[in-house]
Amino acid sequence: MPSYKLYYFEGRGLGEASRQLFALADVPFEDVRLTKETFVELKPTLPYGQVPVLEIDGVQVPQSVAIARFLAKKFGFAGKTEVEQALVDGICDQWKDFYAETKPFYYGNLGICPPGWEDLEKAKTEVLIPARDKFFGFLKNLLNKNKNGFLVECGVTYADLFIVDNMTSLVGWFPGYFEGHPEIEAYYKRVQDIPQLKAWLAKRPNTPF
Amino acid sequence: MPSYKLYYFEGRGLGEASRQLFALADVPFEDVRLTKETFVELKPTLPYGQVPVLEIDGVQVPQSVAIARFLAKKFGFAGKTEVEQALVDGICDQWKDFYAETKPFYYGNLGICPPGWEDLEKAKTEVLIPARDKFFGFLKNLLNKNKNGFLVECGVTYADLFIVDNMTSLVGWFPGYFEGHPEIEAYYKRVQDIPQLKAWLAKRPNTPF
Repeated sequence: MPSYKLYYFEGRGLGEASRQLFALADVPFEDVRLTKETFVELKPTLPYGQVPVLEIDGVQVPQSVAIARFLAKKFGFAGKTEVEQALVDGICDQWKDFYAETKPFYYGNLGICPPGWEDLEKAKTEVLIPARDKFFGFLKNLLNKNKNGFLVECGVTYADLFIVDNMTSLVGWFPGYFEGHPEIEAYYKRVQDIPQLKAWLAKRPNTPF
Repeated sequence: MPSYKLYYFEGRGLGEASRQLFALADVPFEDVRLTKETFVELKPTLPYGQVPVLEIDGVQVPQSVAIARFLAKKFGFAGKTEVEQALVDGICDQWKDFYAETKPFYYGNLGICPPGWEDLEKAKTEVLIPARDKFFGFLKNLLNKNKNGFLVECGVTYADLFIVDNMTSLVGWFPGYFEGHPEIEAYYKRVQDIPQLKAWLAKRPNTPF
């Protein structure tokens, strides 16, 4: 078995989906959690000067979704057929578009709001809620189509992990996040109720993002 | 062989890398180029209401990078090993971050500039040039490491196609784009000189983006 070392900050953010894949597959890894100081030290040695980075037997793989897809393919959470894998990739990229779109609210809650978005209530009403309604619509279509409670036929995939962990942050900052969307709240709970994931959620460090 | 139908606008944009993969592999496909009117008609039938969409024997795959990765895996332009595939995915995601960062200049040149970025000269100086210098730095590191003229060991991949086609747009709007970066300009030409690609570039419709 290769030796895996995952570098990320002391937070869930863009590193958590990969940690959850290790948990789902019950594969050991070194969970390196950087402070501001250790990150600054490490930065010049990282391919794009940022984290997450996964080190596989010494080879550094950067970019959160690329890392998670690599692990998901290895562990069986990337889709079964070639077409299903493409659909999972597409779902995750659609989520990343949603994540980018909602940065004024997300980063605002982390205290690093983009210029012009100092008013978090405005970011919530003008950015987050319309983006949520559109994105939840896509998720509902996928859930209605698959009938198995997940977004694609094969069950849970790395795309669910990014989506659900991001929901954890958003509902923490905006408790009404699921209001009017009970089927999405049920999906959110369904993913977190997967036994291996539930066990990880119970034991992982408690962090604000 | 499956039947492929690629839906995108009458432009290169986020659909062109997939068209180029068909050209590289010499695989026939239906190149459906939508007008504003035909797009509006099609929109409600598309998974996320947007293009590109690839139809494979009737199954719709959305999201530009997911589509290109699917084709690249089929045709042999996605990386040879699992780790190399992850590195290629990471390069492409890094490019997508660059693409998102440079939207004020890119979309400004298409006449749909984001609010506050009406001054294209300002977008060039304050956004495009710093983002370019950072991104070109990453590309130079990869080129120096591989020594084969491409970004990974196996040669040309779908990531090069997104990167190089985007360069075509940027250098068209900013002729000094490669100034001071001769190794990047050489890389740009090297990719376009691949015979199957060169033939496609000579015969494809000439569009402004």
